[in-house]
Amino acid sequence: MKSSIFYNAHHSPVGAFASFTLGFRGPKGGLGLELDGPANESVYIGIEDREESGQFHALPFYGGAENAAHDFDSEHLSELAVAQAILPFAEEEIERRMSASIDEWRAGDLTFRLISPVRSVPDPEQEDAKGALTPAVLAELTIDNRSGKLPRRAFLGYKGSERSAGMRILDQLGLIGVGQGTSTAIATMDSDVYAGLAWQPESILSPHLHENLSFMLGSLGLLVATVEPGEKRTFQFAIGFFRDGVATSGIPTQYLYRRWFDQVEEVLIHALTHADKTIALAESFDRALAQDMTPERHFMLAHAIRSYFGSTQLLEREDGRPLWVVHEGEYRMMNTFDLTVDQAFFELGLSPWTVRNVLDLYVERYSYQDRVRFPGNPNSQPGGIAFTHDMGVANNFSRPGYSGYEQAGLHGCFSYMSGEELMNWVLTAGLYLKRTGDQNWAESHRNTFLACLQSLENRDHPEPAKRNGLIGLDADRCLGGAEITTYDSLDASLGQARNNLYLGVKAWAAYLVLGYLFDNLSDPEAANRARVQAHRASETITNSADQDAFLPAVIGEGVDARIIPAIEALVYPFVIGIETEPFHELNRTLTRHFKAVMDSGICRFGDGGWRLSSTSRNSWLSKIYLCQFVAERILKEAPDVHADKAHVQWLLDPENAYYAWSDQMLEGKAVGSRYYPRGVTAALWKSHSVDPLQDLTKLLAGAMTELNA
Amino acid sequence: MKSSIFYNAHHSPVGAFASFTLGFRGPKGGLGLELDGPANESVYIGIEDREESGQFHALPFYGGAENAAHDFDSEHLSELAVAQAILPFAEEEIERRMSASIDEWRAGDLTFRLISPVRSVPDPEQEDAKGALTPAVLAELTIDNRSGKLPRRAFLGYKGSERSAGMRILDQLGLIGVGQGTSTAIATMDSDVYAGLAWQPESILSPHLHENLSFMLGSLGLLVATVEPGEKRTFQFAIGFFRDGVATSGIPTQYLYRRWFDQVEEVLIHALTHADKTIALAESFDRALAQDMTPERHFMLAHAIRSYFGSTQLLEREDGRPLWVVHEGEYRMMNTFDLTVDQAFFELGLSPWTVRNVLDLYVERYSYQDRVRFPGNPNSQPGGIAFTHDMGVANNFSRPGYSGYEQAGLHGCFSYMSGEELMNWVLTAGLYLKRTGDQNWAESHRNTFLACLQSLENRDHPEPAKRNGLIGLDADRCLGGAEITTYDSLDASLGQARNNLYLGVKAWAAYLVLGYLFDNLSDPEAANRARVQAHRASETITNSADQDAFLPAVIGEGVDARIIPAIEALVYPFVIGIETEPFHELNRTLTRHFKAVMDSGICRFGDGGWRLSSTSRNSWLSKIYLCQFVAERILKEAPDVHADKAHVQWLLDPENAYYAWSDQMLEGKAVGSRYYPRGVTAALWKSHSVDPLQDLTKLLAGAMTELNA
Repeated sequence: MKSSIFYNAHHSPVGAFASFTLGFRGPKGGLGLELDGPANESVYIGIEDREESGQFHALPFYGGAENAAHDFDSEHLSELAVAQAILPFAEEEIERRMSASIDEWRAGDLTFRLISPVRSVPDPEQEDAKGALTPAVLAELTIDNRSGKLPRRAFLGYKGSERSAGMRILDQLGLIGVGQGTSTAIATMDSDVYAGLAWQPESILSPHLHENLSFMLGSLGLLVATVEPGEKRTFQFAIGFFRDGVATSGIPTQYLYRRWFDQVEEVLIHALTHADKTIALAESFDRALAQDMTPERHFMLAHAIRSYFGSTQLLEREDGRPLWVVHEGEYRMMNTFDLTVDQAFFELGLSPWTVRNVLDLYVERYSYQDRVRFPGNPNSQPGGIAFTHDMGVANNFSRPGYSGYEQAGLHGCFSYMSGEELMNWVLTAGLYLKRTGDQNWAESHRNTFLACLQSLENRDHPEPAKRNGLIGLDADRCLGGAEITTYDSLDASLGQARNNLYLGVKAWAAYLVLGYLFDNLSDPEAANRARVQAHRASETITNSADQDAFLPAVIGEGVDARIIPAIEALVYPFVIGIETEPFHELNRTLTRHFKAVMDSGICRFGDGGWRLSSTSRNSWLSKIYLCQFVAERILKEAPDVHADKAHVQWLLDPENAYYAWSDQMLEGKAVGSRYYPRGVTAALWKSHSVDPLQDLTKLLAGAMTELNA
Repeated sequence: MKSSIFYNAHHSPVGAFASFTLGFRGPKGGLGLELDGPANESVYIGIEDREESGQFHALPFYGGAENAAHDFDSEHLSELAVAQAILPFAEEEIERRMSASIDEWRAGDLTFRLISPVRSVPDPEQEDAKGALTPAVLAELTIDNRSGKLPRRAFLGYKGSERSAGMRILDQLGLIGVGQGTSTAIATMDSDVYAGLAWQPESILSPHLHENLSFMLGSLGLLVATVEPGEKRTFQFAIGFFRDGVATSGIPTQYLYRRWFDQVEEVLIHALTHADKTIALAESFDRALAQDMTPERHFMLAHAIRSYFGSTQLLEREDGRPLWVVHEGEYRMMNTFDLTVDQAFFELGLSPWTVRNVLDLYVERYSYQDRVRFPGNPNSQPGGIAFTHDMGVANNFSRPGYSGYEQAGLHGCFSYMSGEELMNWVLTAGLYLKRTGDQNWAESHRNTFLACLQSLENRDHPEPAKRNGLIGLDADRCLGGAEITTYDSLDASLGQARNNLYLGVKAWAAYLVLGYLFDNLSDPEAANRARVQAHRASETITNSADQDAFLPAVIGEGVDARIIPAIEALVYPFVIGIETEPFHELNRTLTRHFKAVMDSGICRFGDGGWRLSSTSRNSWLSKIYLCQFVAERILKEAPDVHADKAHVQWLLDPENAYYAWSDQMLEGKAVGSRYYPRGVTAALWKSHSVDPLQDLTKLLAGAMTELNA
């Protein structure tokens, strides 16, 4: 895999909705808190020249040299301005090695590592979670001056882009650091380092007078260390985030880490004090991750995990209960359910309690009852429980029973997704029970399961005899519009919910999972009802294949687009381990469909990347990853190595690389769902046994267990 | 006064470091919290067309119509986008009437008033301050549809520019509003108004379905009211600000309003509930302000008062004590002492306790002891107490004894101002005592006064016999550099502290004020010591006049620039009422100097505006206002009406008008000190008696008293 190394990647603590984003050239990364994209600030990482004292080389993550003195001193009388003395390293001098926990840059005699271990989120109601939830990432700056003849300085710093506060030098005893206001900071406990503020990094690196380092008007802060000739030294830093006060509206919360930390200084000290363990954890995880993966898949998975962590937010409600949120990348919708279900495989390996937390909040606040209608018919029919698309947007929880996204009266993007989100609750619940065996939880939701079954049946057809297993009616809330699937931005082939092939297979899976849930609850009657529906769905789908084995994207409505995600929902019974032998015909039909769309090339782009719908230029990487897993493990197809290479190139395209991991690719260009958490569907690639959730648990919680042993 | 009405002005509560800035064309104002300039967001204020239903006219404070749907829906399948239906009013249709408390816009049948009364800040340790410190401003939208034939909608809203949170609809019972995160919001309690979120204002004004108004992905929020034909109605709104958690570093504080308010909703309700009194207060103050002023002076003073309020921040320390901060406009330095002393006339009329609060914190944390040196001489001499330039920058308090600004080793901008800030403490203390007669306070600072006298003497010359009343030595902290005056960005004529003419007169005034303070404390010996120094200064200055009556800017150092601020410090003995008859020769000399520099035209720009130094193109409006007062009241010069007109044009220049009130003008262009609080020196124009502080107290606290009576 030979590609540009200059792509942004998240480096994030768990649950802080924070990201130190770095890797795209220019002032395009930095310390972002609760943002919908990179912070776009300069980051300074560099080293003094080996021969020429006072000349420096830096990684190319900063803007041109600025001198803000003229805003104060319009006649340019100031003696503060100094000559530029930092050059970016030449690109060919720079190497990068990124995995999920460690991102390492080498250039000349400089090595810079960012360390943010992939680690599970301990349930704060059960375990000591302070270490895992410290809102900081670590950095290491290593200077190899063993062959140098001069002492050489090295530096790390940033120019904060937050509008409401200035830069400062930390004054906590034992901590040497720079920060912006009370919300972000970088610090070390290494007393050989000094801190400074200025308008130009050169003023801190080579201060005319050491006394002037606390120049609080300075727009940037730097930490500077010196390494003597003949020495090689590593300096450790923590990059901390902190949000005080009420964090969200709608449901008032604060960040859960406020239980242990009252200010960013405490965060930094804790992170630095426990750095060795954190680094060991990071190294251990990255070793495990790299095993048995192609470089392409390893890159995409590591990258995706980073973007996922950057979107996580662990809050505490006023009554002390934790509240887990994953923000939807650039859109920042909260716990968007179609992401929850896709991310569940990864999250259940990592921290199953967060999945339960989201499922419970959906029942508590983001479920609703409505009726349903046939298209074009103003009379409504009994419906039942449904779930919202999301829980709000960008730190504002939506009102109970409503998402931030769904709108009435529409037939496309932004319409309701009642039917599919209902399935998503069922599917996620099934995955959770499979992973945890949490029988008490299942028992507590017995009525919810029953309500879900009833609602799904009602959305098929009011008369049992006329049911075909698919979604046949639209939610009343659409007010004459039509429900859509969660593939909202694709064309009608994946957009319309009614009689949708993708959603039909998902309905089949949801009924099977309901059967599994009711078996667990010893309710054979309900289980049977669910399986009857699964058979209906299976039959409807199987019967819709044409003579060439193609399945239409919308069954019986003349939409002949061909779609890969027909196979997507096969994943659920497989992962849960539900017997699907009675549905071998469905499996056979979907396999033939899949082969047909792939072999004919209609679901491929020119570069070999997968095209989810033959009639749309828009393709989503997270879903491609998921369907690749289904194709390989369930349909027994060989891995599409050529496609993997194309997908990597999409992410690394210079127009896309700024957004870290992105999902929606329009012929390879990231046009939406950028800076996005959903790519962790790729974690399924790490499973090779019949119990993927166990495989992922071993991988994701394994490093921790190993270290604790 | 006929000029463009499209200039930004602050509309700010007291002590919230917040501003609803409005008036410059385009998305260049909005709800700013703790910012160094306008928030740069769209504000929507408009009314439906009289004839054509569904077409609207708005004030020109928003950007082009945006549709963010494409970020979600790259294939443009969404039905959400609607046609543009808002046109800006033509400029000639719009009228504006701005005073200090009320800013009124009229266009067609729309009247929009922003109400933020000039009111004193009650001492929260003594009085009920909740009403005065509610962090909100009021707005009124009046629609005159008496001659209309159709119902007409009107609207008010904004597109928040805060990066960390989305827009939301408020869900507090009784409140109809839109906000961004937990920090800003606009709301009404008028139940005839509805709220909505969208990407386009049209989607809220003419919603396809009312159900879709809570579209939380929307980037803007609007409040919409309807007025029936034949009716004229006024709708009241509050625009609220709220900052939760720890507000500052260095000294941990929270906003003092947190005593009464836990969220912005509570702020809005309180503001709306007490709107009538607030409006009466505003109207009463504006009536008083307009009396006996030219339109030019009225405009400049009103404008300056607004910018002052936008920079004020009332905090509460951890022990419950209030802490008053005025941020320095675009620089956001905190309680910059050279601003404190200039703003003291206004502030002492308004809220004398805030002046005391700042003086006390200067003694407690921002004073220091150092030694002094003759230029070029490495040996130091006894010095004494001095005060820092400021207390930190942009919500970060600096460490004790240090400012954010002052740097060692310099000879110009950013060097130390030890001598002048020492005088500033003395002068402000004298003004405070004059205004309040607070003998207890004076007694508690007896030792500080003595230390100030000693330090001033030592900075003149170590040997009493060689003292000339001026600053002769530089602070040790300069480390070989030289102290500067607080006219830091002008040329050497006003820059260098040693033997500076401006600072010489200020030293004379400071010694006189020390005499006044010691008289009050019945310490005739110290009073005498101070007066001896005053005589020395007077003599030195008087003797330096050349044959043409000009005084050199730097005495005895060959700097022949001519400066207006030679007369500035005459203001202190005059305002305090100190007898200056013994110094009639100084007065005569300064009068002749002033006449010479003005009559010769060397201290005027081409447009008639005042040029503070004959050798600098940079002139500061706040200081011009102050010197105008001195010229008129003390030197008995006629008001320079022609100059007033030029100064107004500086502020309204299209290149400057974005920054609201600005101070530093380089040949009429605002090049620094923009969005700045210092212009309230103009308040002195409102005094016509021999006791300006009493005049200002009557004006500034008068409206309140009148209403409470």
